[in-house]
Amino acid sequence: MIIVTRPDATEAQIERIVSRIQSWGLKAEVSRGAMRVVIGVIGPEDKIREKPLGAFPGVESVTPVLKPYKLVAYEFRGMPSKVNIGNVTVGEKELVIMAGPCSVESEDQIASIAKAISKAGAKILRGGAFKPRTSPYSFQGLGKVGLQLLAEARKLTGMPIITEVMDTKDLELVAAYADCLQIGARNMQNFSLLREVGRTNLPVMLKRGMSATIKDLLMSAEYILSEGNFQVLLCERGIRTFETMTRNTLDLNAVPVLKSETHLPIVVDPTHGVGVKQFIPTMALAAVAAGADSIMIEVHNAPELAKSDGEQSLLPEEFKDLVPRIRAVADAVGRELC
Amino acid sequence: MIIVTRPDATEAQIERIVSRIQSWGLKAEVSRGAMRVVIGVIGPEDKIREKPLGAFPGVESVTPVLKPYKLVAYEFRGMPSKVNIGNVTVGEKELVIMAGPCSVESEDQIASIAKAISKAGAKILRGGAFKPRTSPYSFQGLGKVGLQLLAEARKLTGMPIITEVMDTKDLELVAAYADCLQIGARNMQNFSLLREVGRTNLPVMLKRGMSATIKDLLMSAEYILSEGNFQVLLCERGIRTFETMTRNTLDLNAVPVLKSETHLPIVVDPTHGVGVKQFIPTMALAAVAAGADSIMIEVHNAPELAKSDGEQSLLPEEFKDLVPRIRAVADAVGRELC
Amino acid sequence: MIIVTRPDATEAQIERIVSRIQSWGLKAEVSRGAMRVVIGVIGPEDKIREKPLGAFPGVESVTPVLKPYKLVAYEFRGMPSKVNIGNVTVGEKELVIMAGPCSVESEDQIASIAKAISKAGAKILRGGAFKPRTSPYSFQGLGKVGLQLLAEARKLTGMPIITEVMDTKDLELVAAYADCLQIGARNMQNFSLLREVGRTNLPVMLKRGMSATIKDLLMSAEYILSEGNFQVLLCERGIRTFETMTRNTLDLNAVPVLKSETHLPIVVDPTHGVGVKQFIPTMALAAVAAGADSIMIEVHNAPELAKSDGEQSLLPEEFKDLVPRIRAVADAVGRELC
Amino acid sequence: MIIVTRPDATEAQIERIVSRIQSWGLKAEVSRGAMRVVIGVIGPEDKIREKPLGAFPGVESVTPVLKPYKLVAYEFRGMPSKVNIGNVTVGEKELVIMAGPCSVESEDQIASIAKAISKAGAKILRGGAFKPRTSPYSFQGLGKVGLQLLAEARKLTGMPIITEVMDTKDLELVAAYADCLQIGARNMQNFSLLREVGRTNLPVMLKRGMSATIKDLLMSAEYILSEGNFQVLLCERGIRTFETMTRNTLDLNAVPVLKSETHLPIVVDPTHGVGVKQFIPTMALAAVAAGADSIMIEVHNAPELAKSDGEQSLLPEEFKDLVPRIRAVADAVGRELC
Repeated sequence: MIIVTRPDATEAQIERIVSRIQSWGLKAEVSRGAMRVVIGVIGPEDKIREKPLGAFPGVESVTPVLKPYKLVAYEFRGMPSKVNIGNVTVGEKELVIMAGPCSVESEDQIASIAKAISKAGAKILRGGAFKPRTSPYSFQGLGKVGLQLLAEARKLTGMPIITEVMDTKDLELVAAYADCLQIGARNMQNFSLLREVGRTNLPVMLKRGMSATIKDLLMSAEYILSEGNFQVLLCERGIRTFETMTRNTLDLNAVPVLKSETHLPIVVDPTHGVGVKQFIPTMALAAVAAGADSIMIEVHNAPELAKSDGEQSLLPEEFKDLVPRIRAVADAVGRELC
Repeated sequence: MIIVTRPDATEAQIERIVSRIQSWGLKAEVSRGAMRVVIGVIGPEDKIREKPLGAFPGVESVTPVLKPYKLVAYEFRGMPSKVNIGNVTVGEKELVIMAGPCSVESEDQIASIAKAISKAGAKILRGGAFKPRTSPYSFQGLGKVGLQLLAEARKLTGMPIITEVMDTKDLELVAAYADCLQIGARNMQNFSLLREVGRTNLPVMLKRGMSATIKDLLMSAEYILSEGNFQVLLCERGIRTFETMTRNTLDLNAVPVLKSETHLPIVVDPTHGVGVKQFIPTMALAAVAAGADSIMIEVHNAPELAKSDGEQSLLPEEFKDLVPRIRAVADAVGRELC
Repeated sequence: MIIVTRPDATEAQIERIVSRIQSWGLKAEVSRGAMRVVIGVIGPEDKIREKPLGAFPGVESVTPVLKPYKLVAYEFRGMPSKVNIGNVTVGEKELVIMAGPCSVESEDQIASIAKAISKAGAKILRGGAFKPRTSPYSFQGLGKVGLQLLAEARKLTGMPIITEVMDTKDLELVAAYADCLQIGARNMQNFSLLREVGRTNLPVMLKRGMSATIKDLLMSAEYILSEGNFQVLLCERGIRTFETMTRNTLDLNAVPVLKSETHLPIVVDPTHGVGVKQFIPTMALAAVAAGADSIMIEVHNAPELAKSDGEQSLLPEEFKDLVPRIRAVADAVGRELC
Repeated sequence: MIIVTRPDATEAQIERIVSRIQSWGLKAEVSRGAMRVVIGVIGPEDKIREKPLGAFPGVESVTPVLKPYKLVAYEFRGMPSKVNIGNVTVGEKELVIMAGPCSVESEDQIASIAKAISKAGAKILRGGAFKPRTSPYSFQGLGKVGLQLLAEARKLTGMPIITEVMDTKDLELVAAYADCLQIGARNMQNFSLLREVGRTNLPVMLKRGMSATIKDLLMSAEYILSEGNFQVLLCERGIRTFETMTRNTLDLNAVPVLKSETHLPIVVDPTHGVGVKQFIPTMALAAVAAGADSIMIEVHNAPELAKSDGEQSLLPEEFKDLVPRIRAVADAVGRELC
């Protein structure tokens, strides 16, 4: 931790900071410049970080030297992690496509979509039973019935299922059906929920919040790992910017940055990331080139009748056309798609 | 709802849109321009809004005409609402100051701060017992003990208390102690929690999420009102921008905009909004001039030892100095501070 | 243009709006809802756009129906444009790589880099002679000498050169040397400069401003085309967001959106877009997958000694390694790289 | 400057960094932690800042300790500056109101508005003769005629005039008429223009760019001061965020931050900052409470006919009503309004 003092800091203020640091069992290295004094605080960064050094009179800035995350840091493992979802592994050379409708709406709908995408090359089935909707008057999902329909579609196709859990009180129910739990962008800092999914033995896909920095995302993942669950996927799904021609701004920079910072596998969701149907296939290809381990795409057999996200769902035949294009880019960057 | 078609939309596509609209019992008014066709959809906006009109082939854009919120809209009541927290009313001519530490840390701490701020002019005591922290390794609050200490401080000073609830499973416990429930910025779109606090008979202060638009904030409040609880305060507490010299960007524009859009009273939290201690008093004055009904300020008696937010807490004597300055600005804009 | 009135708009206000619209020779179509009146304004959108309709009492919102750009719009040409820079064409099936140092620093430097990148596969040489720098105390470029050195490097390698013009008063000088003029992000809305480069017969690469929407970028390009110069390239180079782990957020969504909105070719600059050396090659690949017509990359032979952007410049050998990876992705998405 | 090395940095890389620092005549202080090495670079920060330390192999991060601006820094003068515009001084206890139309449109228009606002309490007349417009098809200002009309309005009312200069080639002309030059938000980083206005002896008002950090704004002002012109005002006029209910987000936090960082006087422009007429008066009051030295407000006598910004212009009578409200808040925060 590096403390820089204000130009008008008094000698007494500086001494007070130094003696306080020493009283915590840490070491203070003082360098005096013309206008400001720089104090390096040496010792366990965790211990230092909790101290409100900025609250001391005379302090101008406090800059951490080390990163605040530990278990998620790449250097903690020194190699990429793999996450097993049912019989599918994410984080290997093989790229994994997750697909399915935004919401589970009926037995016919989910069965029909599941069969089509499985045949086209999807390996994991997505579908929402509990839906976080901006408006209380929008369709909120089928709940338990939706989970049962997902389970039937799994039986039908063999694909493991990923579905969102929105609240600690629903966790037991969702966990009874899901092969992978999804934490949505709006719950990325629902720390109670993060802790609880960290206590399950199910893999968890954590979506980046709309205004979450990459560091925030990693800290939220750290909550899950700190409870003992290391089966975590991180998902980039678009951040909020001033741009209005797209629903969000899919931040593909996050993919190589995350690959460098963490051992956890990275999923990209171009559907929510760009939110305009015609641009989704292209952004899926860009995500693969950026190094994503998995791509998640919304597919609906009748978007005009969809109860949510109809505007941004691909048709099964559009999805089918996209898969070989994804395969070509995957091959070009040294990945595979079976 | 206004639909604009693409320049290359076919006549068949346009007819299909129109007939689908009519099949929903709605009216379609078609205006033909040189390059594009504009279709006005007339009927209940709620019913229209749920239809994925953008998913129809040939559609370029879909623009809603009406606002998606109802119960929170100013026009729903046609006059400002008042919210009663214990014996204090927010939303009257009198401005209300809420103050207290970020976290409840000990009996001495909360008692000492509560007495000092009550004497200085605060009317409601804030203090966190359940703390949403970015890092799992940071102090997470005293939980039930923190609530009990708040209740003792209430007995000591007569001030009603506001404290955060983070999860539906803690709601019963927190509601047993709090006079007003706080929903934090990170939980602004925790819709399960919003519904549950909407079913209590306690007032709720809903903080704006870091990247929430004003419309998002109003839609989240709509969740609470739609469950029957109209005792809701909205709190502006800073949004996330590219600026790095402040912790967040306190968006005071939101105050007059919200005053125009909704009947609910508005609280401003300059402490989190700007996040740098030396700028907080000035931003508190600006918030009053902008029309806030209440100001929330963090105060700590020993910021250098605080377990959270020490850097941005005022000392009790600094708070005491600020109150008459707030009163002067309140008077200047036609408010009062007792 | 769609006008929506306020719930409290009077009949007299509505009549006044309608009669004013009619006095401009336009048609007003009035639809009455329960709470608000919707007035569609029919006629030439350009003429309507200039009228301050929002200034009329009783108006709640004004929404344009048509796009404000004409010459740059895809539908103006109905097919993609090609831009010729010297003997190189951007906008064909063949992807074009532009490369070179941030600043021209010396004859040896630019000659050495130019030879290396030309051999490796670059087709256009970039290099700054006039440098826009945040600080007045930073290196500001070699000016005319820099242009002369670029011209020598062109003679040496056969590569046409692209270089920035910062001010109308330098335009004649820069135009005497450059094969393509670059307008930097900070000058994207320097409208005087846009007009002046629109009056030259040189191709122009216009970089997107750090907070420019895609529409803003297109409107700035419209300035150039409206003066008669249709040889315009648009360059995505990163926007400003809250993220701090990258210098900017390269917005690759802009590539397919621009491809859909305009006929102009698109360049992506991953160097400035992400600004962290280790992530640039990956983002270059993602840009190709996103559909860029050209990629611009900073290369320096001694980044540790560079007078600007040393931190984000690839070494010539790193650039050489990247070219075949770009080729592979180009092939995968149906492009070519000679 | 603080250098932190990567966990995998080799001893040879660290030695190379240290020896390079020493070869520049600077001192390197090395602290070794468990995973990373921290190297403090001691010596003139300016000299260090120019070196691309991040380009050295083994470096993870480089953090500057000192601020990059000098002449604009508060500590350079140690007291606030005053700027004289004609017979008016900005930066004293007395708050100064600037007002006038967005564009000068005709002799009647500017004369009528100037008389009305002068009588109501404005001290400086604003009005655009050269207008930066997003669209090339919008009204671009009357140019020289507009300047002449401003000069006549000055003669009529005695108010000094502030008007925008957009390009170095217009500077001589504009300087012949203006009492204060305005640099618009879109030209905040037009460094050629900044240098040129720095060589005049006229005061300059520099507006903050839409995505400029406070540091960027100060660095742009540094350009002007570094040419010898210390008569500089900084103007906050709204930044670009994700919020869409206001045209921009007026960042009032910038006022106290700038007051702390620089000696230059601060102007706030609520008209562009919020961009919605009904919210402008309130935001003007908030700006005064935030500590602005001057407020700039657009006033038009016939907003419905205005050639630019009609939607956000106050009527002369609305301006007249606002002045006493501004005076009341000014009094409340220890300022004056004559």
